[in-house]
Amino acid sequence: MVALFQESSLSQDSVPQESVPQAGVTRPRLRTKVLSVEDIRQIVVHVGLDVLMDEMIARLTEAFAQFDPSETVVPVRTGFSYEQPQVGLVEWMPLFQKYQQIVVKAVGYHPHNPDVHHLPTVLSTLSAYDPSSGHLSAVMDGTFLTALRTGAASAIASQHLALPHSKTLGLIGAGAQAVTQLHALSRCFELERVLIFDSDSKVSGSFSERIAGLGLETLVFQQATVSEIVAAADIVCTATSVEVGAGPVFDDHSLQPWLHVNAVGADFPGKFELPLSLLQRGFVCPDFRAQAILEGECQQLTERGEIGPELSAVVKRPEQYQEKQQQLTVFDSTGFALEDQVAMNMMLDYAKALDVGSWMSLESAAADVKNPYSFLSL
Amino acid sequence: MVALFQESSLSQDSVPQESVPQAGVTRPRLRTKVLSVEDIRQIVVHVGLDVLMDEMIARLTEAFAQFDPSETVVPVRTGFSYEQPQVGLVEWMPLFQKYQQIVVKAVGYHPHNPDVHHLPTVLSTLSAYDPSSGHLSAVMDGTFLTALRTGAASAIASQHLALPHSKTLGLIGAGAQAVTQLHALSRCFELERVLIFDSDSKVSGSFSERIAGLGLETLVFQQATVSEIVAAADIVCTATSVEVGAGPVFDDHSLQPWLHVNAVGADFPGKFELPLSLLQRGFVCPDFRAQAILEGECQQLTERGEIGPELSAVVKRPEQYQEKQQQLTVFDSTGFALEDQVAMNMMLDYAKALDVGSWMSLESAAADVKNPYSFLSL
Repeated sequence: MVALFQESSLSQDSVPQESVPQAGVTRPRLRTKVLSVEDIRQIVVHVGLDVLMDEMIARLTEAFAQFDPSETVVPVRTGFSYEQPQVGLVEWMPLFQKYQQIVVKAVGYHPHNPDVHHLPTVLSTLSAYDPSSGHLSAVMDGTFLTALRTGAASAIASQHLALPHSKTLGLIGAGAQAVTQLHALSRCFELERVLIFDSDSKVSGSFSERIAGLGLETLVFQQATVSEIVAAADIVCTATSVEVGAGPVFDDHSLQPWLHVNAVGADFPGKFELPLSLLQRGFVCPDFRAQAILEGECQQLTERGEIGPELSAVVKRPEQYQEKQQQLTVFDSTGFALEDQVAMNMMLDYAKALDVGSWMSLESAAADVKNPYSFLSL
Repeated sequence: MVALFQESSLSQDSVPQESVPQAGVTRPRLRTKVLSVEDIRQIVVHVGLDVLMDEMIARLTEAFAQFDPSETVVPVRTGFSYEQPQVGLVEWMPLFQKYQQIVVKAVGYHPHNPDVHHLPTVLSTLSAYDPSSGHLSAVMDGTFLTALRTGAASAIASQHLALPHSKTLGLIGAGAQAVTQLHALSRCFELERVLIFDSDSKVSGSFSERIAGLGLETLVFQQATVSEIVAAADIVCTATSVEVGAGPVFDDHSLQPWLHVNAVGADFPGKFELPLSLLQRGFVCPDFRAQAILEGECQQLTERGEIGPELSAVVKRPEQYQEKQQQLTVFDSTGFALEDQVAMNMMLDYAKALDVGSWMSLESAAADVKNPYSFLSL
């Protein structure tokens, strides 16, 4: 089921240059691999969504297992957040894998995008740089890959912290991220029933149409209240656009003692989705602790509760955390640049294997490196 | 001489989308304006280097005069610096002009690039985002524009702080940045003589060839020692790759009392070019104080001397600083994102006027904004 490419995008020539003979002059050119939306579409259609998600989960599991923060440096993301012209933020999520690759994801979160611009809430692009020269080696769409890897991360957390035989999934917030949450979880669990709530009934109502292509016809989909979902679900994914200060999105009522929650929506200072009491009782596993205490559910716990190990620590020692599957657990998913690096390199590997994408010159590198004007005279 | 375009790139539709009818389906597409190296070359060849530099200086002067840090937010740049695989850094320089535009320059500084990769020391790309949606509105080469705007900034500082009748220019470090320093200063001063030093005699020896296309044949070019340059020059530009901890690059010997120094090279913690005593005696004007105390000559002054106002403050009130033209002055140029924004928008305006560049889809935005997979089904 899993089609892992063994070749690594890091093994490509890191500073690709071509010499373009022109009027007797040899001009060196720095080339950047660009994967447009159409290129990504070609790859996904060729590979298939299920295989791609399986491979994303497999590669990301491996990356978490191998993750060494002294070798792969992930600073907390920075950027601009604002109330005008629309509520939103644009941030940069950098990663430095010593000494092979720098990856930066630019990501915008604008909750009013669907209504105001008919655009997704999250827009994103990914860039990779070669640390031996600073060269921009690749650029690609990050919007689709952000949804894909966010789903994959929840699936991995659930594999380690939810009941292995979980059958009932609850989705609180049924927008774009809910599609990949369900898809990823359906690849790892024998789900039978999906309970759906969205504060906008049009959004919850259209959910089953949106996942029609995913071959999940055997599942039972039901609209439900938040309380019904929390009471019945083995796994809950919260992926809402709840406003800053307006959380939590459900009350800490009766719930299955083994409930596992993937809290996906909190990614903004002051924005959170889960009740504090649930976090305090549960085993809380952040994707990236330093960021989760700034933007995630862990914001609520810094002075009032215990924050568990990061997901990479759980993946490294699954047996140590197996008993947690019987207990209340929370994956605090704020988005981790490692996930973006894995997604980007997977697509670069496919682009190379399938000969998809284009090469562009986006950095002027003249014949005379000591003359910034020499790229003009060809 | 100055050909200012009046139309602003900010007045373009901020979220350009096109509808591509295909098999009866309307697919919205987010488009990003991309200016490749070849596009930049076309614009520069069409406009001419002198007109372009004059316009860069005029636009940047206006931008400094209008600069309001509460309206245009410029955080200190962040990034990765390292010793392996080569000594270098990759950084992001962000700017948020409320509420119109976000600009980020990705810039690499790798002093061994010329020897190791036959590439320029500085490689860079510029990106612009629309804060109403997070959309990546434009991407372009930043390598050429970094050199252009760095020259323009020194010219503006020199217009305000050097003797108006400066005739002798000294260049300490005769690499890529020295070309645009000379070019920019030659547009603002009636220079007669250029004294040149580089620690690599091949670099200083090739300098006059490299600026052969700039119409500066009436100038006298002379190789000189650092001491000779400092003793004779009205204006000195330091643009060296001196190593961390190895500065200063000249001693504080005899010099003209009105000497103005554009210190361009310091852009790295621990890297500086000027003697402390000169900074302590002189009027030191940083481009961006918060960054200059981390990476510029001002590193030396935080506990041991006085740091003057930023260049924007000087440009706002030139009469207040006119007496400084008779005195020892230093422009501490570390690179300021405002300069990059001005350069980028100038090129976007030219690209629009000249119909240069291409539109690419780099962010998947599907017909159904609530379904990250819907861009697949066309």
